[in-house]
Amino acid sequence: MQAVGVIVEYNPFHNGHKWQIDAAKKRSGCPFVIGVMSGNFVQRGEPAIFDKWKRAEMAIRGGVDLIIELPTVFAVRSAQYFAAGSIRLLHSLGIVSHVCFGAEHADLELLKKIATATSDVNIMNQMHINLHLGNTYASALGQALRKHYNVAENITSSSNNILAIEYLRAIKEFSPALQPIAVTRQISKYNDTTITSSFASATAIRQAIIEYLTVTDKIKLAVPETTSEVLYDLLLQKYGPVTLHNFSSIILAQLRLNNSKQLEKIPGVSEGLHYKIHDSSLLATNIDHLLSLLKSKRYTYTRLQRILIHALLGTTQEQLANFDKEGPLYARILAFNQNGRLLIKKMNQHNTIPVITKTTHYLSSKQRDNNILTPLQQMLSVDTLASDIYSLGIPSSNLNMGAWDFRYPALYIPT
Amino acid sequence: MQAVGVIVEYNPFHNGHKWQIDAAKKRSGCPFVIGVMSGNFVQRGEPAIFDKWKRAEMAIRGGVDLIIELPTVFAVRSAQYFAAGSIRLLHSLGIVSHVCFGAEHADLELLKKIATATSDVNIMNQMHINLHLGNTYASALGQALRKHYNVAENITSSSNNILAIEYLRAIKEFSPALQPIAVTRQISKYNDTTITSSFASATAIRQAIIEYLTVTDKIKLAVPETTSEVLYDLLLQKYGPVTLHNFSSIILAQLRLNNSKQLEKIPGVSEGLHYKIHDSSLLATNIDHLLSLLKSKRYTYTRLQRILIHALLGTTQEQLANFDKEGPLYARILAFNQNGRLLIKKMNQHNTIPVITKTTHYLSSKQRDNNILTPLQQMLSVDTLASDIYSLGIPSSNLNMGAWDFRYPALYIPT
Repeated sequence: MQAVGVIVEYNPFHNGHKWQIDAAKKRSGCPFVIGVMSGNFVQRGEPAIFDKWKRAEMAIRGGVDLIIELPTVFAVRSAQYFAAGSIRLLHSLGIVSHVCFGAEHADLELLKKIATATSDVNIMNQMHINLHLGNTYASALGQALRKHYNVAENITSSSNNILAIEYLRAIKEFSPALQPIAVTRQISKYNDTTITSSFASATAIRQAIIEYLTVTDKIKLAVPETTSEVLYDLLLQKYGPVTLHNFSSIILAQLRLNNSKQLEKIPGVSEGLHYKIHDSSLLATNIDHLLSLLKSKRYTYTRLQRILIHALLGTTQEQLANFDKEGPLYARILAFNQNGRLLIKKMNQHNTIPVITKTTHYLSSKQRDNNILTPLQQMLSVDTLASDIYSLGIPSSNLNMGAWDFRYPALYIPT
Repeated sequence: MQAVGVIVEYNPFHNGHKWQIDAAKKRSGCPFVIGVMSGNFVQRGEPAIFDKWKRAEMAIRGGVDLIIELPTVFAVRSAQYFAAGSIRLLHSLGIVSHVCFGAEHADLELLKKIATATSDVNIMNQMHINLHLGNTYASALGQALRKHYNVAENITSSSNNILAIEYLRAIKEFSPALQPIAVTRQISKYNDTTITSSFASATAIRQAIIEYLTVTDKIKLAVPETTSEVLYDLLLQKYGPVTLHNFSSIILAQLRLNNSKQLEKIPGVSEGLHYKIHDSSLLATNIDHLLSLLKSKRYTYTRLQRILIHALLGTTQEQLANFDKEGPLYARILAFNQNGRLLIKKMNQHNTIPVITKTTHYLSSKQRDNNILTPLQQMLSVDTLASDIYSLGIPSSNLNMGAWDFRYPALYIPT
């Protein structure tokens, strides 16, 4: 009983995701698909447009058998840590033979060559120099590869290629038996901001949702019918869209209340950025203004947004460093179908990490409050706290209560 | 050169306030009036409906010569500490001979008798018992006075009588030479929620502003023309109304992010309320819901709201206890007219506490960030931080930047 894993955000689930699931099954020969999915906050340093349970529901109805939450402490991170967290989680499940990921250049041999190159001393030295000059990680790596390996620089300029390279590095380190499958992303144009065909980017779909607040014909074109049904209900009930703007004043309040010594502890902050954050938080009238004040060659918007999410959730560099040593300590199930139920049974037999279908079996809000927690509970605390904060950004004020994780068990969705 | 002091919130400045200024001058014989005014957050545990500079402007244009900010650490406090802070501040100015306050029962001899009684061992013991039974301060005092002094219980059931009693106690302790003048509040009905005559409560005026977002005829009836002119501009530019609701998600985020051990340090929290706050913050969808979950016989809405404002600003019980020992350490001028300018000169000659017309002469945002501060700077830090948070609740998003205190010096308003 072997499964193929996909590492996803489904923000929201669209035709390209459905296509990938089919490709993953076909290419791997596995009958089952397990998705490791970011929770309420995603890798680009933003809240997900809809909460994790609703996105998991779309995924199950779209063909995934089981959705497991990637713990927040790995989800809201740069490619390297995001990839390591995801691959280690898939590995710990004990039933995953393949992992399938999309890339702009789905040339597995080239990507593997680049992944290996990142450990080459020449590349590492050159990258060190490039980073020191104020380049972003992607650009520092691209320049170094062109210089020493004659690899076209644009290969590392797309975020999905970078992720693919990091998946391959993580597989080598944590799960050498895991078979990687690279598929070309079915999207007309990367990060296209409008929907132009049935394969549109999630960015374009989110933009349309935010603009029209209903399921337009263009959105219908780009997502499976199962997604558009869920979307329709979610927008009607004002479950979303949840955007970074909805947290503008909460984040500014947090930053203004903290002094730069406290801001220095936020993951991703270095080279004096804490002073700039402190000053900018006083100048800024909203989150976009703040980001424009902080932007520089060294700091991408994505990196800055991740910093703001960490500030919002109160996570510290020290915390994350500890979690990085441990890797994911549980498999938190968000949703599953009939096949997923069988997969859960199998995972429980392997028993490498606990499979959590009900949070309260492992952590209660009272325990979280006590603050005397095992490492597993600490990791789970961040996820549950992330939900408590996320819910404050939901447009319907009836949905702003917290403790969702303590109330809702994994969803069974017959498909 | 003697001045009469008034202790005010001007939230906003209305006909009753104007009447009080005239009465204060007439009754004291002083040619000058100095107002000690709450800053951006007021005694009932709410943001002021408009910021402190705009309210100070209304006051100067309404006949006050000089508006001094009561530091936040005394302004957002129960009657006893609010009164002690105000009286000590007036005393420190060195030029104030009289203090004039409004009360529902402006019978100075009766109020003095009650003020003395609060130090009577019988009353203190009885109050201790009553408080222990879960009564509020006002009700515990009222019951004890009726039992031992045969004073009608309803005298202590109005917040202005309670304040008057506390002013008299503070005068006795900190400024025995200060002459108290009690005047009957010119308001048709206490805490009347609608405007029924030219003397309306500030509550009723605020309610009308919040409901209509413009200066209606009823509002015009209840405020001097100078106020209605300022109000008109403020509402046009969306400077307000600023309400507790505008801080709903910031406060809920703060509470959810803190564990109950941290919540226990909030001023006003006792008898296990921190656990209830922790749990309620997860259940509540907004600030009204939260308050209704926390309400009990012992905790008035006002006390609970003050707790929430302290949580919002991050002030702790320990901090406040230190400030209470010191009393106000500066006279921060918010606005003044020609007479006010003379008063400032006189105060500078007396030189008991520094007179601040420009915050940056005493504290910069960089110094506040460094966190190595003198007691004066610590007190001033809370005021400037209160403004940084307050501005996030201003309806016009163009006005949500912070650091107002570091940008705006005291306003000179020719009258």
